[in-house]
Amino acid sequence: MNYPSRLIEEAVSEISRLPGIGKKTALRLALHLLKREEEQTRSLSEALINMRTKTSYCEKCHNIADDRLCNICSSPRRDHSIICVVVDTRDVLAIESTNQYKGLYHVLGGIISPLEGIGPSDLQIDSLIKRIEHPEDSEPVKEIILALSPTMEGDTTAFYLQKKLKSTGVKMSTIARGIPIGGDLEYADEITLGRSIVSRVAYD
Amino acid sequence: MNYPSRLIEEAVSEISRLPGIGKKTALRLALHLLKREEEQTRSLSEALINMRTKTSYCEKCHNIADDRLCNICSSPRRDHSIICVVVDTRDVLAIESTNQYKGLYHVLGGIISPLEGIGPSDLQIDSLIKRIEHPEDSEPVKEIILALSPTMEGDTTAFYLQKKLKSTGVKMSTIARGIPIGGDLEYADEITLGRSIVSRVAYD
Repeated sequence: MNYPSRLIEEAVSEISRLPGIGKKTALRLALHLLKREEEQTRSLSEALINMRTKTSYCEKCHNIADDRLCNICSSPRRDHSIICVVVDTRDVLAIESTNQYKGLYHVLGGIISPLEGIGPSDLQIDSLIKRIEHPEDSEPVKEIILALSPTMEGDTTAFYLQKKLKSTGVKMSTIARGIPIGGDLEYADEITLGRSIVSRVAYD
Repeated sequence: MNYPSRLIEEAVSEISRLPGIGKKTALRLALHLLKREEEQTRSLSEALINMRTKTSYCEKCHNIADDRLCNICSSPRRDHSIICVVVDTRDVLAIESTNQYKGLYHVLGGIISPLEGIGPSDLQIDSLIKRIEHPEDSEPVKEIILALSPTMEGDTTAFYLQKKLKSTGVKMSTIARGIPIGGDLEYADEITLGRSIVSRVAYD
């Protein structure tokens, strides 16, 4: 495309490096910013730079934090004997919004994916083992919950973690897979439906 | 949502002010930037600020330009006697990419929309009349093509322009409406199909 100005072209090229944003959307966003007050572009740019340069990570669970420890790890009201293993901060936010979990987290920072060249050493796995074997809290870790997506990569990572953590003797579990609440049996895929029959739950 | 850090919260809030980007997408983009090199965020921010503060507009057609006049208005190879009236720069790019038009443009900068409080005085209509009545070029303007979307707002704007430009005596036309190339008659809406019959084109 022949952009009318070099400045627009550079902005579009930078915006379209973001995931899920193509050249057309990038141009729409650039033209939107051009129409608005200069102040909006300034505060957007500043917020991005501040976030990128000043954000720090929790020393314990590697979640994003404003301090040395995140709000969750530093809270005395959380159960420090359960650790839920997730891929990134978005998963922490998703589980927190259910209000069903009161333990701690461990953010791996990615998922094992040979196709993208991400191996176990790129993830925060050693520090997870250290948290189990040498707990900083007075309480020992009683359970590890793997909350990984039921995809090829998620299953590979879960399998690797199971093998790796076996020697610690800690109890391990995974989040339940099955038909989603409100989901229609008729439209469920065969694998999910099959798993939900195999892992059926007895009435009390 | 309880963001893990104030910096993330501010970035998400700024990103989600962009059109078509909600809080979830904004968070995804923010976390993406956090994972990448600091350099990427810096060059994105700089490109946005540069674009917003340094972009100028063509004095003649109000398209975005690096100079006093845009590339199109300053080109001697374009037909300066035809002006195509469009809403914004994206429309110029869309028409340019067809390679079917060799005249000039006039960017209105918006469309008449009482709902959004945009009236004729907010658009570049006076300068269009001036271009027709007192042409800067040696050639007089022979034809005005209205290339506005066939929506309520587009039709209102076209109607207003027709009335307003009538006194100049210039020839006016609109882009053809009809069944899109590759479109299926069966799935065309009644209004488009009806118009395409009324405005049928005789074989030569």
